[in-house]
Amino acid sequence: MVTFTDNSPGISDVQGFLVAGAGCDIRNKNTDRLDTAVIYSKTPCVAAGVFTTNDIKAAPVRLCQARLAEGKPMHGVIANSGNANACTGDQGKTDAARMVALAEQLTGAPAGSFFVGSTGRIGDLLPMAKVEKGIAEAASRLASTEAESRRAAEAILTSDTRPKTATARFTWQGKTVSVSGIAKGAGMIEPGMATMLAFLATDIGIERELLQKCLWRANSASFNTVTVDGDMSTNDTVIVLANGASGVTVTAADTALLALFQEALNKVAYALADKIVGDGEKITKVVSVQIKGARTEAEAETIARAIGNSLLVKSSWYGEDPNWGRLMDAAGYARIGIIEERISIWYNSVPALINGRPIPENKPAWKQEVKNRRFSITMTLGLGAADYTLLATDLSEAYVNFNKSE
Amino acid sequence: MVTFTDNSPGISDVQGFLVAGAGCDIRNKNTDRLDTAVIYSKTPCVAAGVFTTNDIKAAPVRLCQARLAEGKPMHGVIANSGNANACTGDQGKTDAARMVALAEQLTGAPAGSFFVGSTGRIGDLLPMAKVEKGIAEAASRLASTEAESRRAAEAILTSDTRPKTATARFTWQGKTVSVSGIAKGAGMIEPGMATMLAFLATDIGIERELLQKCLWRANSASFNTVTVDGDMSTNDTVIVLANGASGVTVTAADTALLALFQEALNKVAYALADKIVGDGEKITKVVSVQIKGARTEAEAETIARAIGNSLLVKSSWYGEDPNWGRLMDAAGYARIGIIEERISIWYNSVPALINGRPIPENKPAWKQEVKNRRFSITMTLGLGAADYTLLATDLSEAYVNFNKSE
Repeated sequence: MVTFTDNSPGISDVQGFLVAGAGCDIRNKNTDRLDTAVIYSKTPCVAAGVFTTNDIKAAPVRLCQARLAEGKPMHGVIANSGNANACTGDQGKTDAARMVALAEQLTGAPAGSFFVGSTGRIGDLLPMAKVEKGIAEAASRLASTEAESRRAAEAILTSDTRPKTATARFTWQGKTVSVSGIAKGAGMIEPGMATMLAFLATDIGIERELLQKCLWRANSASFNTVTVDGDMSTNDTVIVLANGASGVTVTAADTALLALFQEALNKVAYALADKIVGDGEKITKVVSVQIKGARTEAEAETIARAIGNSLLVKSSWYGEDPNWGRLMDAAGYARIGIIEERISIWYNSVPALINGRPIPENKPAWKQEVKNRRFSITMTLGLGAADYTLLATDLSEAYVNFNKSE
Repeated sequence: MVTFTDNSPGISDVQGFLVAGAGCDIRNKNTDRLDTAVIYSKTPCVAAGVFTTNDIKAAPVRLCQARLAEGKPMHGVIANSGNANACTGDQGKTDAARMVALAEQLTGAPAGSFFVGSTGRIGDLLPMAKVEKGIAEAASRLASTEAESRRAAEAILTSDTRPKTATARFTWQGKTVSVSGIAKGAGMIEPGMATMLAFLATDIGIERELLQKCLWRANSASFNTVTVDGDMSTNDTVIVLANGASGVTVTAADTALLALFQEALNKVAYALADKIVGDGEKITKVVSVQIKGARTEAEAETIARAIGNSLLVKSSWYGEDPNWGRLMDAAGYARIGIIEERISIWYNSVPALINGRPIPENKPAWKQEVKNRRFSITMTLGLGAADYTLLATDLSEAYVNFNKSE
């Protein structure tokens, strides 16, 4: 059985990992705000990652992808907030390389064994003198304490209003296996740029290809199923490190153990994704858009995203007056071939439309449902058996105000 | 030479057309607001049309498409605002059919010779008793006067703040050919639904297939190149009627005459599209997004739409603080394979980025450019020779407020 701890201490929950958070004023605001995090395992880790598919990838993303492709044992992650090191040309690449080199040197890890993640403003060069101080401070603080772990979770935040951590654990033959993660939000940053970062750690032993498969599965059911404003960043990064310190090793053949590990990984990833949406910039609603009865999952997803990213739909959620006609319209312009007469729509459990026929007498009831901060909208298409659920947010006037300047 | 008149009287500029606007309180607000328009030609017209590609098409759209497919001579259009007759099931079809039948009967036109357009709230049945009164009043007022023509242009408006009319004319062998049109806006309606309606009339003689080709060309360079909020309606309709009353007939072989007619049609369509964007709901900026140097026009369009529909980009235009990093990010997630080092960006004529390198010293200059209500953003990709220009708007807090309830 997998046990789950929400808002856990984070990375320090995992055996063999040291962690730290430091502040070096990357934002140049003369504050002691934390902005630099290090995650480190003395013993080598197997690593897996997923990254933004944006054509424009920030320097840290390109560095991580290259290291992952090499497939060497890895030891840690260095991350900063306040500056995305994106659209920064050759200097950006040099700076990202300098960050990992310094972290490796200060921890005594082999060259090439650190990943790097940056998040914040786009197009500005990193203030490297400060960043180097931050890395040095963080490296000197490395510990397995809850306090440092929570500082690391805080250091990667940008426009987030709270840290995001989660841990899942299970026991296997008397040994405890932990999966833990920290993340930062999908809203816009500073408000100059959107980025989602998530760093996961586990003490299971696992081979690289299998870990990558497990991460893809977890990712497709978590970070890939959320939307705040439909803008995809240049820096989105999810990395998982597995150091084997639990003494438990999983292989593809151990189906029972693998299922437990996958469940633990999924739970942590989903909890972090849910927190990202729930802490989206200036949102007031979290809406689970459940599309059912599509011919394929891809078609269901296309419709869910058309609805979840429609300005009209999002504005109506904000106003707690969600015209089902706007849902129909957005589903229609997804153009997968829906048929009006087969569509039914529910707000939570209250039907608003059955087989294309509105139920106007239910309007007071479903208007009550959407007063909740969280509610679900279910649309059945009557075309097939495939489903998709997207976690989306409303669009508030405050979002526009917050993002109107860089 | 084609002469162009902006904010012209509209349909009455075209020989042989009668027009009228009436008010029957479709909105049920006890006002004398105009909401019903009739356009009518005693002599039969050749017709062409383009319609929403939304899977969910309102009853009037389906009726128009069926009539167009029949290819019979047509005589007019009956249109209403205040109710879109969309998602209204069988009763909606019956009501749309009743509207055209009544207009045909009252004008003495043959059965099957009227088109119908509706715009306004989605999901409500038309108040047919009122609509019938409105059609009767409009039919009784039919005239070729400027006053009635302007009433018709007003009757189709919803959340528009002003009527939209334009006329283009040219002389051919001593005879004057006119193309005129009226349109209503692409913002959201009432604010329950988005719809763009445009009705064009011309007194040229032309065959059906050729008129349809001319309309496709005009449409792809006008109504198809604008975006307000990226939401596509269930009711979008553009119809052109050609009655030949000028005594000039164009064929595909008359390349000089055809070019003149196409130019006139393009000018009217583009002027109406431009007015639709400029009168978008609660907008404060109209931005011409010019993507150049793509491999194909389709790729250029994909990038232009990613930029023009990005919430972050639109919010930054509203704030007159348009981070070029957001343009890069949006262009990147269009995922057509752009290369950072080849991209240059201008605000009007001021470069902000050349071949991937920012020019920070130009920031005060381009921040000055974006203080204008209208400005252009040019992005060159350095991948090929194809271009695309999209006319887009900003996103204001007032838009969200306006659309938060139905």
